[in-house]
Amino acid sequence: MKCFIRYEKYCDFPIENLPYGVFSTKDDLTHRVGVAIGDQILDLKQIAHLFTGPELKNHQDVFKEPTLNKFMSLSKPAWKEARETIQNLLSTDNPRLQNDSELRSRALVSQYDATMHLPAQIGDYTDFFSSIHHAINTGTMFRGKENALTANWKYLPVAYHGRASSVVITGTPIRRPNGQTLAVEGAPPIFGKCKLMDFELEMAFFVGGPSNELGNPIPIEKTDVHIFGFVLMNDWSARDIQKWEYIPLGPFTAKNLGTTISPWVVTTLALEPFKVDNYRQEPEPFSYLKHDDKFNFDINLQVDITPKGMNVSTTVCRSNYKNLYWTAKQQLAHHTITGCNVKAGDLVASGTISGEASDSFGSLLELSWKGTKPITMLDGSQRKFLQDGDTVTIKGMCEGDGYNIGFGECVGILLPAYDM
Amino acid sequence: MKCFIRYEKYCDFPIENLPYGVFSTKDDLTHRVGVAIGDQILDLKQIAHLFTGPELKNHQDVFKEPTLNKFMSLSKPAWKEARETIQNLLSTDNPRLQNDSELRSRALVSQYDATMHLPAQIGDYTDFFSSIHHAINTGTMFRGKENALTANWKYLPVAYHGRASSVVITGTPIRRPNGQTLAVEGAPPIFGKCKLMDFELEMAFFVGGPSNELGNPIPIEKTDVHIFGFVLMNDWSARDIQKWEYIPLGPFTAKNLGTTISPWVVTTLALEPFKVDNYRQEPEPFSYLKHDDKFNFDINLQVDITPKGMNVSTTVCRSNYKNLYWTAKQQLAHHTITGCNVKAGDLVASGTISGEASDSFGSLLELSWKGTKPITMLDGSQRKFLQDGDTVTIKGMCEGDGYNIGFGECVGILLPAYDM
Repeated sequence: MKCFIRYEKYCDFPIENLPYGVFSTKDDLTHRVGVAIGDQILDLKQIAHLFTGPELKNHQDVFKEPTLNKFMSLSKPAWKEARETIQNLLSTDNPRLQNDSELRSRALVSQYDATMHLPAQIGDYTDFFSSIHHAINTGTMFRGKENALTANWKYLPVAYHGRASSVVITGTPIRRPNGQTLAVEGAPPIFGKCKLMDFELEMAFFVGGPSNELGNPIPIEKTDVHIFGFVLMNDWSARDIQKWEYIPLGPFTAKNLGTTISPWVVTTLALEPFKVDNYRQEPEPFSYLKHDDKFNFDINLQVDITPKGMNVSTTVCRSNYKNLYWTAKQQLAHHTITGCNVKAGDLVASGTISGEASDSFGSLLELSWKGTKPITMLDGSQRKFLQDGDTVTIKGMCEGDGYNIGFGECVGILLPAYDM
Repeated sequence: MKCFIRYEKYCDFPIENLPYGVFSTKDDLTHRVGVAIGDQILDLKQIAHLFTGPELKNHQDVFKEPTLNKFMSLSKPAWKEARETIQNLLSTDNPRLQNDSELRSRALVSQYDATMHLPAQIGDYTDFFSSIHHAINTGTMFRGKENALTANWKYLPVAYHGRASSVVITGTPIRRPNGQTLAVEGAPPIFGKCKLMDFELEMAFFVGGPSNELGNPIPIEKTDVHIFGFVLMNDWSARDIQKWEYIPLGPFTAKNLGTTISPWVVTTLALEPFKVDNYRQEPEPFSYLKHDDKFNFDINLQVDITPKGMNVSTTVCRSNYKNLYWTAKQQLAHHTITGCNVKAGDLVASGTISGEASDSFGSLLELSWKGTKPITMLDGSQRKFLQDGDTVTIKGMCEGDGYNIGFGECVGILLPAYDM
């Protein structure tokens, strides 16, 4: 597959990737749907009329929307046809777009000139807890090694409902919060600035396909029709606030202060070549959670911290999506087992993706082991938790045969708390 | 205040109430905004041009929307002006609508001919846990009397993020779910039909006003600008599923199977005469949660169960909104303290509203004390938890001086589980 648009061989967005996003430009503030190709964006609004296949010819309007929700709500065959159409149009063999300089100049925008927006209107956001290493690490810290995993953990993919309104696009600054914490065990709580700000390395998928009706679970064998594509996520967490508030109903204000996602939705179709064996599950899951086909992905993940005003970033974590115990299919089957309805544009996150090795832990809480093992940064400074002005950058990459599939970046700077 | 539309003196919707809802009719399937008056609905789309006051004359379009979100997003002065305009138009002293028989016949629809819909597109739904009696009851059952209240409970209004997609309008049937439960402590879980289906008597407010920016808490003294109005809520709960899943991240599939709300949003303005003293709080709350003005309401609440095929309902609970320890203002101030952004149309629920008396408990879990004290119904049958075919009806009523402010009904029937 050769693309007429030139890009570096191992860039994030070759013709094998084609992730979807929503962008605007200085000259045209309209939010519109595009596909990343090299360092360009193909504006699908401009080429909507070229989607003439059987699945899309009557749905060209989905490419004229300000979000991806309508496109996501179509079927898997439609997503496949869109991918093939775009690959075709970008191919050196195809003159249609290549030789139409007027259309090309309208339809191609440099990524440097674009502002990215949330790819979808997120109806609901759910956060799972599907890395066994993360669950064991945090469980060990808070309940001891013997009781690290809660009794339910290997039977069901534990999750909680998150806050959709506070999901923001890469680049949005995050404010260190004020809140209640317990400075001294047994003493009354205090109110003040969060002292233990953390990142969480996660990935999330956007739900696609038609909605299921309330009361009707999605069977595991039909879940892949509803998994449109994936983004990187930083689930910023105020650890000291979380610890004081989370019993008995789970995390609340410690997590609704901002959740950052990367702008380009890499489709499940593009990830097909990177499928690897699912994590071995023991005990065997209930049949509503059981599937034999592979639905785990080899995606290298990395977290960098750049201290304020520095050009030197330190990679503090190298992990991989494949560390997850529960697959996205299992997450969705469990999410709907009691009848919950899901909708195109809903966001479902993995939970912190920690590996087994101590440098693969997906949060500072684990990396610094509750602050007992500070991390030394390349500039000589140390980190137990995040400092004001720190920029956290998450990257993701699949290594293909002669190409990469990149996820772009999920970036945010931590601003100092307000005085209250 | 005399209304030219006739209604019974103690009906739910006198001219002092004027709650907002969204409805359609057989002849016109468009969802549109209306106000309940007696047993009629005043269609605001038809009279949008009559909102000519300074706050609304440039915002008449909010009454032509298919949801209340845009109207809710206006300011408190706009809500006040809308209320005064409608009261004026309905007054016997005002000929404008009264004497325009053509407009009147277009603008007034019988409630019996209308289908009600969700009043707003709910961006996010949050559920608090603000009744001290409910917290003590459930805490006593699960952790013993000594540890009934968690350490944080009197310092902050405990809450969790709920599922917005599964909030449904009154009348929507609810399906008993299948799920994982722990039949025998220490044994592996089993999968099957929920055995302990329950209701939860709650109320919820819709957020209004302009959004706060992410990272910027709403100060307690500005919260009332964001509390548009209230509905009744039944937060259906699968107790056995909840018990197995909720540690450590809170309720998930036990609660996202359906949450029913009543269709008419009774405004905070209409509830003004029913303000009563706030619950006495000890210890004194942090200053971000402190307000001295009354923001508690005397609203009588009642839960009835009607067994399948019976005409005889049994009132199983009589409670009151004023039983809540934390006010709606405190809930909203806490919700945003770490910077969470809230939007018009978000729904914020109280949690189960239990009083002190054993017949005022707001759930069967408490009323039957975990199934140890079955309730005898008027038809002779007994209830520990809900049975298939049971209809649960929640009603709410403020008793005014010569009039009532009613909330309509929040009704749902429990359908049997699917065989899986």
